[in-house]
Amino acid sequence: MLDQSTICAIATSPGMGPIAVIRLSGEKAIEIADGIFQSPSGNKRLREAKANTLHFGTLREGPEIIDEVVVSVFRAPRSFTGEDVVEISCHGSVYIQQRILQLLISKGARMARPGEYTQRAFMNGKMDLSQAEAVADLIASTTRASQKVAMSQMRGGFSSEIARLREKLLHFIALVELELDFSEEDVEFADRRALRELVDHITEVILKLKDSYRLGNVIKNGIPVAIIGETNVGKSTLLNALLNEERAIVSDIHGTTRDVIEDVVNIQGAAFRFFDTAGLRETADTIESMGIERTYGKLKEASIVLLVVDTTNSLPIITGRIDKVRELLTGQHLIITANKVDIGLKETIEGLKTLPLQPDEHMVFLSAKRKEHLDELISRMQETIALDQIGEEDTIVTNVRHFEALTRALESLQRVQAGMEQHISGEFLAQDIRECLQYLGEITGEISSNEILGHIFKHFCIGK
Amino acid sequence: MLDQSTICAIATSPGMGPIAVIRLSGEKAIEIADGIFQSPSGNKRLREAKANTLHFGTLREGPEIIDEVVVSVFRAPRSFTGEDVVEISCHGSVYIQQRILQLLISKGARMARPGEYTQRAFMNGKMDLSQAEAVADLIASTTRASQKVAMSQMRGGFSSEIARLREKLLHFIALVELELDFSEEDVEFADRRALRELVDHITEVILKLKDSYRLGNVIKNGIPVAIIGETNVGKSTLLNALLNEERAIVSDIHGTTRDVIEDVVNIQGAAFRFFDTAGLRETADTIESMGIERTYGKLKEASIVLLVVDTTNSLPIITGRIDKVRELLTGQHLIITANKVDIGLKETIEGLKTLPLQPDEHMVFLSAKRKEHLDELISRMQETIALDQIGEEDTIVTNVRHFEALTRALESLQRVQAGMEQHISGEFLAQDIRECLQYLGEITGEISSNEILGHIFKHFCIGK
Repeated sequence: MLDQSTICAIATSPGMGPIAVIRLSGEKAIEIADGIFQSPSGNKRLREAKANTLHFGTLREGPEIIDEVVVSVFRAPRSFTGEDVVEISCHGSVYIQQRILQLLISKGARMARPGEYTQRAFMNGKMDLSQAEAVADLIASTTRASQKVAMSQMRGGFSSEIARLREKLLHFIALVELELDFSEEDVEFADRRALRELVDHITEVILKLKDSYRLGNVIKNGIPVAIIGETNVGKSTLLNALLNEERAIVSDIHGTTRDVIEDVVNIQGAAFRFFDTAGLRETADTIESMGIERTYGKLKEASIVLLVVDTTNSLPIITGRIDKVRELLTGQHLIITANKVDIGLKETIEGLKTLPLQPDEHMVFLSAKRKEHLDELISRMQETIALDQIGEEDTIVTNVRHFEALTRALESLQRVQAGMEQHISGEFLAQDIRECLQYLGEITGEISSNEILGHIFKHFCIGK
Repeated sequence: MLDQSTICAIATSPGMGPIAVIRLSGEKAIEIADGIFQSPSGNKRLREAKANTLHFGTLREGPEIIDEVVVSVFRAPRSFTGEDVVEISCHGSVYIQQRILQLLISKGARMARPGEYTQRAFMNGKMDLSQAEAVADLIASTTRASQKVAMSQMRGGFSSEIARLREKLLHFIALVELELDFSEEDVEFADRRALRELVDHITEVILKLKDSYRLGNVIKNGIPVAIIGETNVGKSTLLNALLNEERAIVSDIHGTTRDVIEDVVNIQGAAFRFFDTAGLRETADTIESMGIERTYGKLKEASIVLLVVDTTNSLPIITGRIDKVRELLTGQHLIITANKVDIGLKETIEGLKTLPLQPDEHMVFLSAKRKEHLDELISRMQETIALDQIGEEDTIVTNVRHFEALTRALESLQRVQAGMEQHISGEFLAQDIRECLQYLGEITGEISSNEILGHIFKHFCIGK
């Protein structure tokens, strides 16, 4: 099942840097590296190197020196993939990185597919599937919360919780299946009351894990926040004030913001994924029209909609706007952000203060330009989710695949529960319990198909 | 003179990647890393690790696990800097990279200044100054030519050429200075004819090195090419065809290209640094006006100006345009690129073909959209420089500091030559030879000041 070829890829962030690391893994990793490596004395050979050692020298293509490098030698099974691994630490020129890759390929390695190193680690039993998935999450983590959840999953926290549930069910199914062998004798090895208690307990645990997904998803991906509003109400200024840097173009010209600019800002350990959108102004400008279509599309993806209104406008204009946006919403939290309060019309501001709000709606008054009352806006945003719910020991599900497997496992368990109410035979109970075991096993990869694996690892970056 | 503190920085390209490397260097590097590192067994200590070994484990801040890492231990003097060095290979999340840096700093390391690792390598005698400078060039190399030149310099090719010249001069100055000690006796230890031959020889070598700078500069930085022309003549399309990818926005709306987009394309081993510019149309649009100002600024930086004209326009419009651009030029090669020949006006094309060209001017006819006759344009661009002049053994000067030092060394030698013509005394000859030695010594750093060093290393990236 496992591809034996030797794979190579750049393992560090793409682009120029002081150094870059190129990783080789597979049976011929050390041999291939040795063929192009030369130690300063010319005598030291990588194939004779001990495991976990570092070697300085040059990489050569024929007589030409491509770079001076430090080579790390890891020997199977004590490596990330469980195979022989060589890491080449070279000067971080993009040209040199590419040149070394080409050289390795010419010597018999092939480019690694996305996630192939981690997939090999999984195949070689270095980690289970949920741990392998956590590697990608860990790399993508941008906040303390997301790093913590991914690290816990990578170190096996979630896996062992699932393993505990499976073990208990396996014990029971063994007894139920034993009954089937003695079916003519009408015995019950598996205590039905104990089974019922077990199923209820597992159902509860799975429900809790399933519930954690809403939070897990937000921790992993950031809380999506759409900033909308007419042109010139100060959306870009607000975004910049929140990001505390000038990422978006701000200008006095109507319709400047043509692209959906997305940026993640880390506020007190949680990530908010802001996207500024093109204005909602009707326009004949083709580029801007494209932007507006995207605005509506993005609105659906948001958890929070920040509607920015300009208090220098009259009240009816603003309330008309608010009503129009309310029509577009499909369950998002709406935060009406009354901007420019430093220069706003008094009657507009007073009018807005008495405006009746619906549940899940908030209103804040601020000046984005002067960076005044931004704290209030941030507090309202944080209230929409409840990050402080996470306990130290809680397992948080962050992966949609796990969420789906848990959902199906739960359905099987509910059939078990219903079956027991109706006193159905052990045979049918066993079938549903087996199904539940299957879904739980898919999470950790004890039960896996090439299709599932392919789907998981293709979303990794190359080099991991 | 040398700062003894332990420094840390991210050594890999910024941003997210599968892995990232954080480098610690200094007396306490191993101690600091050891304080936050824990091996799987909990027993292995980095301070007991042998040189050039790799260690898997976790990094911890108190009880919290920040990451699973592989740590490389190098011990002085066998390291890049010549000091104790620890490299931490962690998961390449930006959050994790920052967190580990913060942790190292809290344990007593400080952030490295730009180029500080290489500066320490120089201070500790691991390389001379011209080699240290080549490290930065090597990292920035984007083509085979630039990598080759930087590698040769880093491995000491240029340094040994300079050292040979200095050695010969040092031998002579010793004899001349000996004469001064015996000045009352009117002896000549230094053979004036041999000295004259030596000075002539060294002058010749330095002249050749100086001349190589024009080529070296182009190899290092790419040949700057400005693409200019009115809106809608197809500048962006041409740039994209040359880049073979859609980097710039192309649209039918006048004035779309608002920013100077710069991109380097590697054609047959040499780099061309293209910049597309905003159109030269008079406009009231404030953003576009900013773009136009930059167009004129960028024009001065170019070696080659690609003026793109649209052959669907009438001949007088185009020739008017050409004349206007000629007025702006200050010695650049002008390549008039007659675009849209597939749909162009016959009389315009015929008229352009008979247009008298000035020296340093070329005209090519092509269709950027259909990617026809691009080769001709590329040939004309390559002719403007002569990359095939470089021999295998040639030393190429790529550094403006070296160029300046060589220029001054040459001036001293010319004074020596003039002095010898006039039979001036050994004392004055010795003074000029000493000056020449000083300038040559500045190149390799045998003679250096904090000011020179500060200036050189501040242009390095942090982490190198």
